[in-house]
Amino acid sequence: MITLSSDFGSPYPAAMKGVILDHPGGSDARLVDVAHDLPRQDVRAAAFWLREVLPWFPPAVHLVVVDPGVGTDRAAIVIRAGDHALVGPDNGVLVPAARALAAGGDQEAFDVFAIEVGEPASHTFHGRDVFAPAAAAVHGAGVDRLHDLPDLSPADGFVDLRFPEPTVDEDGAVGEVLVVDGFGNAITNLPGSVLDGRFGGSVEVDGDAVPVRRSYAMIEPGERLVTVGSHGNVELAVDRGRGDEAFGVERGSTVRLSW
Amino acid sequence: MITLSSDFGSPYPAAMKGVILDHPGGSDARLVDVAHDLPRQDVRAAAFWLREVLPWFPPAVHLVVVDPGVGTDRAAIVIRAGDHALVGPDNGVLVPAARALAAGGDQEAFDVFAIEVGEPASHTFHGRDVFAPAAAAVHGAGVDRLHDLPDLSPADGFVDLRFPEPTVDEDGAVGEVLVVDGFGNAITNLPGSVLDGRFGGSVEVDGDAVPVRRSYAMIEPGERLVTVGSHGNVELAVDRGRGDEAFGVERGSTVRLSW
Amino acid sequence: MITLSSDFGSPYPAAMKGVILDHPGGSDARLVDVAHDLPRQDVRAAAFWLREVLPWFPPAVHLVVVDPGVGTDRAAIVIRAGDHALVGPDNGVLVPAARALAAGGDQEAFDVFAIEVGEPASHTFHGRDVFAPAAAAVHGAGVDRLHDLPDLSPADGFVDLRFPEPTVDEDGAVGEVLVVDGFGNAITNLPGSVLDGRFGGSVEVDGDAVPVRRSYAMIEPGERLVTVGSHGNVELAVDRGRGDEAFGVERGSTVRLSW
Repeated sequence: MITLSSDFGSPYPAAMKGVILDHPGGSDARLVDVAHDLPRQDVRAAAFWLREVLPWFPPAVHLVVVDPGVGTDRAAIVIRAGDHALVGPDNGVLVPAARALAAGGDQEAFDVFAIEVGEPASHTFHGRDVFAPAAAAVHGAGVDRLHDLPDLSPADGFVDLRFPEPTVDEDGAVGEVLVVDGFGNAITNLPGSVLDGRFGGSVEVDGDAVPVRRSYAMIEPGERLVTVGSHGNVELAVDRGRGDEAFGVERGSTVRLSW
Repeated sequence: MITLSSDFGSPYPAAMKGVILDHPGGSDARLVDVAHDLPRQDVRAAAFWLREVLPWFPPAVHLVVVDPGVGTDRAAIVIRAGDHALVGPDNGVLVPAARALAAGGDQEAFDVFAIEVGEPASHTFHGRDVFAPAAAAVHGAGVDRLHDLPDLSPADGFVDLRFPEPTVDEDGAVGEVLVVDGFGNAITNLPGSVLDGRFGGSVEVDGDAVPVRRSYAMIEPGERLVTVGSHGNVELAVDRGRGDEAFGVERGSTVRLSW
Repeated sequence: MITLSSDFGSPYPAAMKGVILDHPGGSDARLVDVAHDLPRQDVRAAAFWLREVLPWFPPAVHLVVVDPGVGTDRAAIVIRAGDHALVGPDNGVLVPAARALAAGGDQEAFDVFAIEVGEPASHTFHGRDVFAPAAAAVHGAGVDRLHDLPDLSPADGFVDLRFPEPTVDEDGAVGEVLVVDGFGNAITNLPGSVLDGRFGGSVEVDGDAVPVRRSYAMIEPGERLVTVGSHGNVELAVDRGRGDEAFGVERGSTVRLSW
């Protein structure tokens, strides 16, 4: 199984699928699209979504191309994490997902390999010319045989990416909006646990009291709420509306909760 | 085969796919995306599209998540209709499709089962935590073995959903825009048969004479027309333009035809 | 393998998939979506993308529906090109891809068959009612057995489509924007070879000097550049921004480069 994720929109992902299906290693692979509208050229937001989604899959090769540095000297890498492999640019986008997929609870139990990049067919589309063939080759060899692939070698290092840490104390918490989803839910880096014991009550968000509820429809349509999303983090939301607009926040905004 | 439909946009549907593929009942299922941009939290519009699209499929399990009541006490259900099964929330979204899929022309020949919902991993994403596992289990057991699944039991009732009935008489017809498609075609609840014998002529739409044609390109680009869409209903359209804008209508608008 | 391309958005492509999977010829086909957001009713832009993407696939049947003339007397065709078949309307949208897929470097080595169109279920959705069944039948028979299909017969002719030719001389080049991709890159009909020897330098675009670079991130974010895209043509782009807006161009705009 090869999953595909990118910020390409359309139709560029289809060229990657064609390359995989035409490659001896990938011709029999089950292909599953994760998303091709990841926040464009936003490595951190893409890394967040991949960390949330990829661990739900059975063992797979995950091709990920959010690559604003394409054509520069940024490396191309494969990460082996547990029974999974991640293939993409060395800009951090793969790393949070690798930690989530790493076996045995040891978040650092992953291995990074560098892809030897020959002269690709283009300088602007390594998804098609570098990463898709690499993903097909990894699929064909098997995730536990990466050492056998001639174009892979252990990497000397890699670009790390960590999400900002929130501040939590007895009076409240200060965090940041990591991403806004398609519904307009503003997803923060605040762990859902800060709302333990507060459901059915309220917290102050930037000074205004806002209800804390288990889910959206527990308040009136159009009203604001604070909840814990499916990722386990605090969300600012509106029932049947957009939380980002109602709270006046966007990706990167600071969020202050107090109780 | 498992089809997937939702109003989730991206990347949430991928988590549902991962859960299905990681489930013993779903790991070998062919997955087919129907749509993930169904009109957001619009149960009736989603129900319309599913009724139009799902009957074209061979026997399958259809996972449908348009679920503004997620996290409330609305039930989770499976409907068996003919050789198909529909899995989703009990808010009516499945019912018109179930009637269309029911065997032998008896639109009430479907059975509804309640899904026993344990403590899900989230209160906000039952698509991933309740409906995807249920769809995988139904696929694994087979549509004719629903009674064998321990988490299913015959439902006491279900939330029905019927589309509004138009008024048709010898002077004209009054209906409603059910949905607007991506081309801007305003699809009404008026049966195409009201236009029998009128193709090549015209009808009055809210008092203005508009040509009646078999297809869009039978008038000049940019001009308005009334036609019968692929669903068999009357459409207000514009050749190479948007009917909703040209007719000043949106989902829910009243449409008056007279002849 | 059957690939699907259209300008339908959603959910109409799902009806085509259902028809294919319910057809004896298509029930075992691997389905791969190329794009369903091809530029709407823009035959030439769609033809460009298909020419760029489809040659990356292994032998396949390519179902293509960008069909502003649906319901008129435009023909429905199948083109055999190399080991591939293309199925869609006779409006030129298939032809550039057919030339790219034609075997042995002879761009005219393709054969065109007319599909006998019976009374379809609709006049507005031949994708579902004419082209999807035809694609399934072609898949079932095999690309080298088109003569055996009763609904196909050699076509008397076909609607050709060629992209405009640029003008290139020793002082510069004049071309046209063929399409704008989702990143905002304005892709012209100018061959990338006109930039040979100019990388690292600059050219004048409509009188302004603009850097020529191998890839986007080789200039500062937000700055304009001229590059060669993955399709081999000259692109007007902005690093981490939209080239179409920064250069004030859109599909069809004239582009003048001078050196």
